[in-house]
Amino acid sequence: MNLKIAALAGDGIGPEVILQAKKALYAIGLVFDHEFVFEDAFVGAIAIDKTGNPLPEQTLNLCLNTDAVLFGAIGDPKYDNNPDAKVRPEQGLLKLRKSLGLFANIRPIKPYASLLNSSPLKKEIIQDADFIIFRELTGGVYFGEKKLNETGTIASDLCEYSEEEIIRISHLAFKSAQNRRKKVTMVDKANVLETSRLWRRVVKKVSEDYPDVALDFLFVDNAAMQIILNPRQFDVILTENLFGDILSDEASVITGSIGLLASASLGKTNALFEPIHGSYPQATGKNIANPIASILSAAMLLEHFGLHKEAKKVYEAVEKAIEYNVVTVDLNADSKFGTNEVGDFISNVI
Amino acid sequence: MNLKIAALAGDGIGPEVILQAKKALYAIGLVFDHEFVFEDAFVGAIAIDKTGNPLPEQTLNLCLNTDAVLFGAIGDPKYDNNPDAKVRPEQGLLKLRKSLGLFANIRPIKPYASLLNSSPLKKEIIQDADFIIFRELTGGVYFGEKKLNETGTIASDLCEYSEEEIIRISHLAFKSAQNRRKKVTMVDKANVLETSRLWRRVVKKVSEDYPDVALDFLFVDNAAMQIILNPRQFDVILTENLFGDILSDEASVITGSIGLLASASLGKTNALFEPIHGSYPQATGKNIANPIASILSAAMLLEHFGLHKEAKKVYEAVEKAIEYNVVTVDLNADSKFGTNEVGDFISNVI
Ligand SMILES: CC(C)[C@H](C(=O)O)[C@@H](O)C(=O)O
Ligand SMILES: CC(C)[C@H](C(=O)O)[C@@H](O)C(=O)O
Repeated sequence: MNLKIAALAGDGIGPEVILQAKKALYAIGLVFDHEFVFEDAFVGAIAIDKTGNPLPEQTLNLCLNTDAVLFGAIGDPKYDNNPDAKVRPEQGLLKLRKSLGLFANIRPIKPYASLLNSSPLKKEIIQDADFIIFRELTGGVYFGEKKLNETGTIASDLCEYSEEEIIRISHLAFKSAQNRRKKVTMVDKANVLETSRLWRRVVKKVSEDYPDVALDFLFVDNAAMQIILNPRQFDVILTENLFGDILSDEASVITGSIGLLASASLGKTNALFEPIHGSYPQATGKNIANPIASILSAAMLLEHFGLHKEAKKVYEAVEKAIEYNVVTVDLNADSKFGTNEVGDFISNVI
Repeated sequence: MNLKIAALAGDGIGPEVILQAKKALYAIGLVFDHEFVFEDAFVGAIAIDKTGNPLPEQTLNLCLNTDAVLFGAIGDPKYDNNPDAKVRPEQGLLKLRKSLGLFANIRPIKPYASLLNSSPLKKEIIQDADFIIFRELTGGVYFGEKKLNETGTIASDLCEYSEEEIIRISHLAFKSAQNRRKKVTMVDKANVLETSRLWRRVVKKVSEDYPDVALDFLFVDNAAMQIILNPRQFDVILTENLFGDILSDEASVITGSIGLLASASLGKTNALFEPIHGSYPQATGKNIANPIASILSAAMLLEHFGLHKEAKKVYEAVEKAIEYNVVTVDLNADSKFGTNEVGDFISNVI
């Protein structure tokens, strides 16, 4: 197979980890005789520095005309701590998601057997936990109208959802559940929010097409608690954009490190793969960032193109690294291995 | 001291737990020679059943004309699973918060030494955790305009905040931090939301009045993770309404049971005290609900009126119940004690 892949390293540790993902994909290409061609482009704070725009035209065009996007990370504290900044790195990612129509963000959560002790949660709580979060990615409060009055004393954000937006991601979630343990848990705040009540109505309707899948509902506050109390109860979690953002970062504690979690963002015609960790500025350039999330997002890319054997090879190589304790300091405080060494080990195993 | 207290038992386990809080307050009254007079009133689903209104005029008037409100719980599954319901129990609580101007909800999180093993988190993670969440309670997406278009296909919720609303709760949070470990962590999503950026700007400004208090910022997704990874890092968390709702339920896992967490909701002239657990319909009438959260909210009421010795007496009685394992099944699966027995034990110890 020939794939043209846009590589958007972005900010912070993005460039370091994406390099390891590329190495893994090159290795897969060699073994299985595929050709993966990468084209690099700027996004985020670095793109603002270079062009004034967090998502330059050139980058967007590249992404629109490649088979897939491999994404690093975005964000820079110099913008976070400046509420008056007019342009922000995150706008680049949000615009990219919207322009590529990436409405479904898929985040699998499953601890590695040999890492059960790395979690702040007790082993018996997380053992056998295995769920996927389907997060709506192009709607909700992320994309609704934002306002600030002239005197800068009143601000607002609009959270809006249409039936359409809910239907398309719901089908993906139910289909995924059909191939799993056949349970969808929809998370919302229907006792307060109008948008949540629309979600409930629409998801119930969609569920009628999947009589073999059980559907239940949780309020987001309760869900945030249940994910920690009893993560095994979940199979597929379906939720809106902001709740998905919060719950998936929270759920990362189950695996012991957010540095292990990958995600796929899918649209009708485009696909983007990224680690769920952010730019982690404190670690930038220190060769300490965990490259596994980025490498696993490359594996999700392979799966997306039906390259299941290839993806499996990556998963196995990652497991081997973990088993042999060739991991970064987030997983083993005494580790002597850095981002590069872990990446090398994994691509060598492949 | 004479206090007139409105007792709003509400729905589900509300009546069972509030009864135990009353017993504790009666006991305190006897020992310390205070007179606490309770006036009961309906709120929530039961008020809808009786009057069609989740917050009847009579209930509201009572609350406006008493010294404090002791609140049970609100909510009924028959409304949760009916997105088309026109009246909902929760509206009663929200309207009460708004009408009494209860802008600050204060939720202390601190595990009991003898319950360190009841948490899904490892002992070494939660040991010595001790923080307070200051949640803004009368603004944000809870109270912004809600819309549903005529065809019922597009819904929206508006999240709005004014400088004023942010200033008043921020002062409370900083003052509280001054009496504690002198650190405020503001939680927001300033990389995406305009309201969060207003929060950041205003909170920074307010912080200048408290040079002895350190201020830092966390994005809500990261905060949801940090609360589990390292709860000891927090002293005072300051956040908006919805984020506070999610994070405080999540943080309950630190204490081992949401049945232990109380909250105070304060306004300029009014105050309401309630457990953070909800109506827990599955437990209703079974004498298994944990009354401690409700009893502790009564202790917060005592503190609010400067009755510190009295509050301390309640805290000690609760500690004794926990120490002697006179607790409900959420804390000890083999327990033979019910809501009533735990309540009796505590008021007897007082
Ligand atoms: C960087 C930020 C805008 C982004 C989000 O909130 O979606 C990130 O937290 C994520 O989860 O991908
Ligand atoms: C019942 C519900 C409206 C309420 C809220 O979301 O505020 C509850 O969850 C709480 O935290 O007090």
